[in-house]
Amino acid sequence: MDHRPIGIFDSGLGGLTCVKKVMELLPGEDIIYFGDTGRVPYGSRSSDTILKYTRQDIRFLQTFDIKFIIIACGTASSAALPRIRNEFQTEIAGVLEPACRAAASASRNGKIGVIGTQGTVRSGKYLHTLKEMDASLKVFSKACPLFVPLVENGHTQGALARLAAEEYLLSLKAEGIDTLILGCTHYPLLTDTIREVMGDSVTLIDAGAQAAVYAKERLMAANLLSDKACGTVQYYVSDEVEGFTDIAQMFLEKEIKGSVQKIEIEAY
Amino acid sequence: MDHRPIGIFDSGLGGLTCVKKVMELLPGEDIIYFGDTGRVPYGSRSSDTILKYTRQDIRFLQTFDIKFIIIACGTASSAALPRIRNEFQTEIAGVLEPACRAAASASRNGKIGVIGTQGTVRSGKYLHTLKEMDASLKVFSKACPLFVPLVENGHTQGALARLAAEEYLLSLKAEGIDTLILGCTHYPLLTDTIREVMGDSVTLIDAGAQAAVYAKERLMAANLLSDKACGTVQYYVSDEVEGFTDIAQMFLEKEIKGSVQKIEIEAY
Repeated sequence: MDHRPIGIFDSGLGGLTCVKKVMELLPGEDIIYFGDTGRVPYGSRSSDTILKYTRQDIRFLQTFDIKFIIIACGTASSAALPRIRNEFQTEIAGVLEPACRAAASASRNGKIGVIGTQGTVRSGKYLHTLKEMDASLKVFSKACPLFVPLVENGHTQGALARLAAEEYLLSLKAEGIDTLILGCTHYPLLTDTIREVMGDSVTLIDAGAQAAVYAKERLMAANLLSDKACGTVQYYVSDEVEGFTDIAQMFLEKEIKGSVQKIEIEAY
Repeated sequence: MDHRPIGIFDSGLGGLTCVKKVMELLPGEDIIYFGDTGRVPYGSRSSDTILKYTRQDIRFLQTFDIKFIIIACGTASSAALPRIRNEFQTEIAGVLEPACRAAASASRNGKIGVIGTQGTVRSGKYLHTLKEMDASLKVFSKACPLFVPLVENGHTQGALARLAAEEYLLSLKAEGIDTLILGCTHYPLLTDTIREVMGDSVTLIDAGAQAAVYAKERLMAANLLSDKACGTVQYYVSDEVEGFTDIAQMFLEKEIKGSVQKIEIEAY
């Protein structure tokens, strides 16, 4: 039994789709969430900058007495985590391995698509991780740089989202994939649109949700779960808190309970 | 005569459309350009964060012995400059007043449209400045948050750009505006698409180019122009320089000559 909180961070608010899943799977856990809203997006930045920002985000979470960290950001999970995992004492899970594991298990024809930001796709880590799990898998990756701005501006459905989804996804569909990893935690909000384009026969893997499943397994194995009936969530952001609640509720699909505070992330 | 350089900055690379105009109008001037590529975009951030970033950008430019600063960023010009102009000794011009002056002079029916980022439109500064120039003007503003990501991902023409432009601009067209201020320095790259939607009878005002015209006037009036035959440009960015040259050439519409260096903007 361990009542210390779990730390979860993302470049912005997409990671709240992972928070939602952690709250479902582990309702007794306290959560510290950090969204780097003052510097979002990470996906279009260089790997060195993503690395610098990721280290600061982890250092901030470590100022709390946390027991586990989830990087609920596809870009930081692929472009930074493999390079910095050993720098920190706390166990850190990204979305990469859990999503690959779920995809490899779900695929029947061995053809897996991966969509994410430019930073995620450029890192090649999804391809590498899937191939390590099963060298016979065929992996098709596609960067979808407009998906994050579309989601953040409320275009999760409608003509613009549909047109962008067609532009990005039709080539993956033509390859005959039967499983598609949503490698960015913003993308689950586009599920309906992505499903319209890809069809019902393609299994969509929500990387943030899979990270939550993995975190539960790890915490159970290490006997670190909390036995509280109901956990709390504290939210931290690097831009103003104003407006946070409305947008956060879109990602969480429920009312925000818990404090929201602004911090200066450059100081960490 | 004054051979000191002109400092120009933007949240990212959109400000290069202003650099291009300064190079045309003032070919003898040396230019120091800073693009905050590690923290772009500014347009969706809070006014306090835009203020903090703008101060750092100006402080960085001031480490050079500059004679004049152009804020070639619509968001920083409207959301930050009016609040910090008096904090600095160097004269600072934004894109706001020059663009409003050009629009007020170009309009025949007194109906002016303004498009920009959320930060620009939320600040209300275009409306306020135009009304101060001529209280009888009718001003219609519209935030176009997807235009910057569209431009940065190369969608300056084609179906996606056209659909987004229709979504943002048709309401302005319906108001019968005869002049449209492109209040963000990324938007001139969408000129063809915007013109397709708005029609040829609407005059488009390029805010960055107007800032260059204004800078020339101010420097002439103060006898601060350089008499060199050919100026140089030094480029600084806050993310990696890799990839900068290709994208920068899209904005400048010419080959990049001059050094490109990365700096740590948080230190200023």
